[in-house]
Amino acid sequence: MSASPKSPPRIITRGDDLRREVLAWRANGLKVGLVPTMGALHAGHLSLVERSNAECQRTVATIFVNPTQFGPTEDFGRYPRNLEQDVALLAGADLVFAPSVEEIYPTGHATFVEVDGVSRQWEGAIRPTHFRGVATVVLKLFNLAPVDVAYFGQKDYQQTVVIRQMVADLNVPIEIRVCPTVRELDGLALSSRNAYLSPDERRRALVLSRSLRHAKDLIAAGQRDPKSVTTAMKSLFSETAGVTLDYAALVDPDTIEEVNQLRGRVVAIVAARVGATRLIDNEIIEVGS
Amino acid sequence: MSASPKSPPRIITRGDDLRREVLAWRANGLKVGLVPTMGALHAGHLSLVERSNAECQRTVATIFVNPTQFGPTEDFGRYPRNLEQDVALLAGADLVFAPSVEEIYPTGHATFVEVDGVSRQWEGAIRPTHFRGVATVVLKLFNLAPVDVAYFGQKDYQQTVVIRQMVADLNVPIEIRVCPTVRELDGLALSSRNAYLSPDERRRALVLSRSLRHAKDLIAAGQRDPKSVTTAMKSLFSETAGVTLDYAALVDPDTIEEVNQLRGRVVAIVAARVGATRLIDNEIIEVGS
Repeated sequence: MSASPKSPPRIITRGDDLRREVLAWRANGLKVGLVPTMGALHAGHLSLVERSNAECQRTVATIFVNPTQFGPTEDFGRYPRNLEQDVALLAGADLVFAPSVEEIYPTGHATFVEVDGVSRQWEGAIRPTHFRGVATVVLKLFNLAPVDVAYFGQKDYQQTVVIRQMVADLNVPIEIRVCPTVRELDGLALSSRNAYLSPDERRRALVLSRSLRHAKDLIAAGQRDPKSVTTAMKSLFSETAGVTLDYAALVDPDTIEEVNQLRGRVVAIVAARVGATRLIDNEIIEVGS
Repeated sequence: MSASPKSPPRIITRGDDLRREVLAWRANGLKVGLVPTMGALHAGHLSLVERSNAECQRTVATIFVNPTQFGPTEDFGRYPRNLEQDVALLAGADLVFAPSVEEIYPTGHATFVEVDGVSRQWEGAIRPTHFRGVATVVLKLFNLAPVDVAYFGQKDYQQTVVIRQMVADLNVPIEIRVCPTVRELDGLALSSRNAYLSPDERRRALVLSRSLRHAKDLIAAGQRDPKSVTTAMKSLFSETAGVTLDYAALVDPDTIEEVNQLRGRVVAIVAARVGATRLIDNEIIEVGS
């Protein structure tokens, strides 16, 4: 990231301190942005910080590997953690909130936010408690950091839909901004989990973004049968050894239900396992007339 | 209620308006209290308004019969509604929020707050989605009315435990105050559902408060075996025709788990059906040494 004129961000670990700082800024009329992350930062995260800095006078970034959004057999334990490096990358933020698990989930914690509907399909079908964990921790962060705007990456498309739904349903007074996926030059969507990939897997993983581009190209060329498009996407996966497709679909941007007509705007979504690493990606496609 | 020097409360129906009013008060340094109700007001509700007025500079009362806390076979349809009379009784409040169901649950609403543990027993066992509905609507009201303090009646004891747990778990920055149950002279706890009782049922319903007093007396007289106390409570119910006991128990004030020792503070809780009307009551008992 480009150098920031700001002084290095302060790091705080207590929710009460976070809330006090944010309220003090807002009481002084400053617009505050929030960038929630699980650390292991890459240029995608930093683009959210830049966007917040462009739109707000103060930016809070949070670093918290949230245990409740991992399933029992998932990678919570080995998820990459490097606080020192992450904080160095967050030079553009004003404040970094990096709490312990005990600070966020003290013994006896028992309350969860469940978003029906948009949580149930796709990632929700494969990771049944994932969005419950996401919605819960995001709501907690919103209460600890009552900001004006919160920034999320489009890479986790279904997550952004779940968060928007939660915010609307629970009357949370925070604006949600979704920022474009940042990609490597060859198309791979940036993800903290890319660190798990061997060079060979890294190459095979390109099938995700390639399948999305293929869907976009087919639709641009006039294909209007969603089934034909998803069949073409899936065949790219079956031609790629070492990659197991979880789903490839064209969905409505708001309901994330699979579309049976191509018109307006659709989202192509894919999820696949590359070796032991599970990756997701998506592309918003304007169908045109 | 005693006459209030205040002018009659304004009535608003839109959540955005409520939020704007509360934020304006708080920006002016005024302490704001919230009294959430389902209407059909009685002196118990009004004691909450008085307490809020004593502790805060502004009081918001809400009137909303919350459909999500009623089970499919329960009394949502016939729950007493009388907005005009309720508003007249709320002369002590500064603002009355009386939204439509559509304002609180627009089409597509899909998010619920689940409080595990303390929601599961007693009322939660008999009314499986009740506390989910309570927690959800209370959190929504807290987001629409970001007040300093919210007031609840002890009569719904388990509800107060569920709300405290939710507020702690989700980092909601609102203080929860629980106010004593208001009773008729003969001991019957005030409840909007008392309106359903025939004169004969009204008489039989006294067994609830009588069983709580009996528990208190036994403990004051030195009884330290919880099983003996609850057995004595239950036998009062079996001697009362037309009343079906759901539960009578001595529970821990925080976990609401049944106690197996009498010491410190316990809560005697009862629930019973009197004819077609379901009533609950409780009493906090200081066991002493």
